[in-house]
Amino acid sequence: MERALQDIVKVCCYGCGALNAHGLQIKSFWAGDDVVCAWRPQPHHIGHPGILYGGTIASVVDCHCIWTASAYAHRAAGVEMDGALRYPYVTAALTVNYRKPVPIDQAIDLRARVVDFGERKAIVQCKVSSRGVLCAEAELVAVRMPVSQPVAEASA
Amino acid sequence: MERALQDIVKVCCYGCGALNAHGLQIKSFWAGDDVVCAWRPQPHHIGHPGILYGGTIASVVDCHCIWTASAYAHRAAGVEMDGALRYPYVTAALTVNYRKPVPIDQAIDLRARVVDFGERKAIVQCKVSSRGVLCAEAELVAVRMPVSQPVAEASA
Repeated sequence: MERALQDIVKVCCYGCGALNAHGLQIKSFWAGDDVVCAWRPQPHHIGHPGILYGGTIASVVDCHCIWTASAYAHRAAGVEMDGALRYPYVTAALTVNYRKPVPIDQAIDLRARVVDFGERKAIVQCKVSSRGVLCAEAELVAVRMPVSQPVAEASA
Repeated sequence: MERALQDIVKVCCYGCGALNAHGLQIKSFWAGDDVVCAWRPQPHHIGHPGILYGGTIASVVDCHCIWTASAYAHRAAGVEMDGALRYPYVTAALTVNYRKPVPIDQAIDLRARVVDFGERKAIVQCKVSSRGVLCAEAELVAVRMPVSQPVAEASA
């Protein structure tokens, strides 16, 4: 079975790190030209009763879009992710537009795509759905971090 | 001593609820025309090693700005918050611009202000600093929720 990007390169980030036992541990996968993620909130991730907290939506979107940018950069360069990130990115700006309340007791589905890609910067758009209903849309500006050699973030 | 807004009206939200034992439990206070919050991350709230996770920054900003909008609406109407929210708000859109990495081992300081206020909508801007250095700037569109009578969110 295909491995999640976050299981190929294990980092310590609260949102996406396989090495962060307290974190959200999202798992992102290529799906054609998109990168997708299904993530199940815990009951305490509520905003209002029964409703997933918007800050947590922003969090999973942030990480998922950053992995989308990095995966895209690797694919564009014809380089496999193989335990290290040759093209790591950080978030310069994140915008989330919240359309509908998201039920807390369901997984949410994220679908992201790079819509603009330059030498230093990538723009990633992401849709967040619950049971097929679009609940939020986001755009993230990802900036590539300079690396002298490929590194696993977790070892930094 | 002045009580935090979140201790006047206790809700269950992951970001700001005094009733959410697993949550971030931010505390916001009026400071002149601004609303301020000092919040100390836990070690597991890291993004990269030593650096506070951007998704968590978005989360505390989200809640702090929503409380700023609600507090402003109460003040504008000459109504005290007194255990119930007469003017609850939800987030319609959140943009965070990340300027500098935020050290994980320091409190962050949020300072928010309502910059536009209408019947249904408020625009809130927020600056995030660490040890006096501006690290992020955010803008939130808050939409007032209709309520037939004042309610404590926690009891909803």
